[in-house]
Amino acid sequence: MPTSRIALRRGKSAQYRRAISDAVHQALVEVIGIPAEDHFHLIDEYEAENFIYHPSYLDIARTDDLVIINITLRAGRSRELRVQLHKKIAGLLAENPGVRPQDVFIYLVENDYADWSVGNGDAPLMKLLEEH
Amino acid sequence: MPTSRIALRRGKSAQYRRAISDAVHQALVEVIGIPAEDHFHLIDEYEAENFIYHPSYLDIARTDDLVIINITLRAGRSRELRVQLHKKIAGLLAENPGVRPQDVFIYLVENDYADWSVGNGDAPLMKLLEEH
Amino acid sequence: MPTSRIALRRGKSAQYRRAISDAVHQALVEVIGIPAEDHFHLIDEYEAENFIYHPSYLDIARTDDLVIINITLRAGRSRELRVQLHKKIAGLLAENPGVRPQDVFIYLVENDYADWSVGNGDAPLMKLLEEH
Repeated sequence: MPTSRIALRRGKSAQYRRAISDAVHQALVEVIGIPAEDHFHLIDEYEAENFIYHPSYLDIARTDDLVIINITLRAGRSRELRVQLHKKIAGLLAENPGVRPQDVFIYLVENDYADWSVGNGDAPLMKLLEEH
Repeated sequence: MPTSRIALRRGKSAQYRRAISDAVHQALVEVIGIPAEDHFHLIDEYEAENFIYHPSYLDIARTDDLVIINITLRAGRSRELRVQLHKKIAGLLAENPGVRPQDVFIYLVENDYADWSVGNGDAPLMKLLEEH
Repeated sequence: MPTSRIALRRGKSAQYRRAISDAVHQALVEVIGIPAEDHFHLIDEYEAENFIYHPSYLDIARTDDLVIINITLRAGRSRELRVQLHKKIAGLLAENPGVRPQDVFIYLVENDYADWSVGNGDAPLMKLLEEH
């Protein structure tokens, strides 16, 4: 049950924004195997002055189409898998809605099984942990 | 000194939003024992297209009244306590402002004593740690 | 490649907000040695009712000029360094744009080398880690 916050400049269509969310979600499904239904994202749109990025840090040419993606997910996925996740997100975003790979900025934050409740005040990952 | 970010659909009254913040805070006071004064929350309101959730993941029936609560708190509370926290938040939100338990989505992120400064550039949890 | 989210009340000029971002960034450069180009910040502006803070928790007198700064950075900086970071941020914000130290609220969240991608789907910190 990862959750993503997606930040981008104001001005893109709802369809474009939805395609970004879908690409990030599809990458999570394909690379770390989350269920297709486990899709919970927040999208924040920014004016230029509140969306600060460097146009060439590490020799990567970024534009105002930059997307900053923050994914919180439970710990346990290997470094290799997380590296694959970055690659897959950038790849799917390039296909649709057509974000340049240079304009994909991702950072993950991990937490614990007990840190998630997706309804009813339950902690479903803890039940899963106790059963296995 | 936990801090919460509360996300919901635009359209609820200021009173309703404040009641959500108060319920989350009260749960933190009751379950993990933070001081009543330690109340720092940000509330983000979203248009439908930027607030993406699944209406039935894990057979929980969610509506547009969904509230997504992200709490950052220092590490050290047991898994049992964190599970109790989810339950208490959902319980208090059901009482006031009357959020259905199915519409309560919570995720916690933990950090360290040294990661907090609540004014003056000091790190009060570090002082606490050094004194005990 | 830390990333910061800066929250404050709506109503400050673009120049003031930029000065806040620059001060936070400069502190990161000076205290933990990130490159000057590694500057990626999001600024969120809030109405009063969505920006909830306590005006005197821990006997610190806060005003509506409060700035809530959330920095995500890779793990590995000592507690001492993180404590220095808080102090430096408050000090630089006092110089420009002139935020009272009492009005500086900071919390850090740490993640891992593999959690960062700043473009092209690559994970540059992992490469760094493998080379050293």
